[in-house]
Amino acid sequence: MKLLEQRIKKDGKVLSNQVLKVDSFLNHQVDPQLMMEIGKEFSKRFADEGITKIVTIESSGIAPAVMTGLYMNVPVVFARKRKSLTLSEGLLTASVHSFTKNVTNEISVSQNYLNKEDKVLIIDDFLANGQAALGLIHIVQQSGAQVAGIGIVIEKSFQDGAEMLEKLGYRVESLARISSLENGKVTFKGQKAEELVS
Amino acid sequence: MKLLEQRIKKDGKVLSNQVLKVDSFLNHQVDPQLMMEIGKEFSKRFADEGITKIVTIESSGIAPAVMTGLYMNVPVVFARKRKSLTLSEGLLTASVHSFTKNVTNEISVSQNYLNKEDKVLIIDDFLANGQAALGLIHIVQQSGAQVAGIGIVIEKSFQDGAEMLEKLGYRVESLARISSLENGKVTFKGQKAEELVS
Repeated sequence: MKLLEQRIKKDGKVLSNQVLKVDSFLNHQVDPQLMMEIGKEFSKRFADEGITKIVTIESSGIAPAVMTGLYMNVPVVFARKRKSLTLSEGLLTASVHSFTKNVTNEISVSQNYLNKEDKVLIIDDFLANGQAALGLIHIVQQSGAQVAGIGIVIEKSFQDGAEMLEKLGYRVESLARISSLENGKVTFKGQKAEELVS
Repeated sequence: MKLLEQRIKKDGKVLSNQVLKVDSFLNHQVDPQLMMEIGKEFSKRFADEGITKIVTIESSGIAPAVMTGLYMNVPVVFARKRKSLTLSEGLLTASVHSFTKNVTNEISVSQNYLNKEDKVLIIDDFLANGQAALGLIHIVQQSGAQVAGIGIVIEKSFQDGAEMLEKLGYRVESLARISSLENGKVTFKGQKAEELVS
């Protein structure tokens, strides 16, 4: 998605070979017009999947997911991060390990909002090693619903999440695919290295 | 806002005289079409305030805030809840006490995304005793920006938040104002008690 790649080049900050900061338009400050374009694009890419529900994870997944839900005319459920598994009655839960923060969060969705007839589109802001997506898949599976696809705003293709999910048989659509953050530069998959305009 | 009141009556669950659960359309499962109507309504009510930025708090404020930002064509910043004030460099922070959960959270916004020229609309899903709104006001004030108004999806008017904020001189616009949850019934301000259709 050209508009998103341009925005990443313009406003993204490469903090290391692993970390791209996009908190000026995606995960702290949010650009609603860009979110709308992102929602439109996901809706187009997954138009033929018969999606009945979108599942994402708080907090940064919510804005792109709700815009996608608007275009697809389906409800959005956001999984909550919880400290523990106490009070888990009626909840579908999964553990998600974050390698960057080195913490394991429990995530949960009320069983009221997923059922076995649902065809679910999972949306998230970033895909790195795929642990968050796996957690959401695990939750959807517990409900008996089907994961019809995974929509990612920014994929760090140099980490193994996308390949792992595709090997498991899932359709992954990422709107920006970053092949490298080396030397402080964002390089998109299939493109030559370009300098990051900061 | 009639549409919202109808939805609360249809899908809200009164758990006690103090607690209304709306997680089927607002704060766990989200109805994107309703969020769009909410955004349109806030945008209309605050059209003359010269708003340059919307500030909300994760996670349930994000959906209505982003839709409002879409209609007003301004960026949205969501405050993050943090466990501690370590690593607070470059952050505007405030403490928010939750009486229902009996915990105090630190909330924070990067100082990069608020400046003294901003006219800020604060958006949140619920207003009860007003502690979250006060925390957001405190953060906006630290940046030198002006709070131009406070937009609330559901106000529990039988708690003292709205009155307190208005006494401090803030314009508060709540799309649904609940005067009572007694006897398992939702009563809106200015209306007679009506049974909750569950």
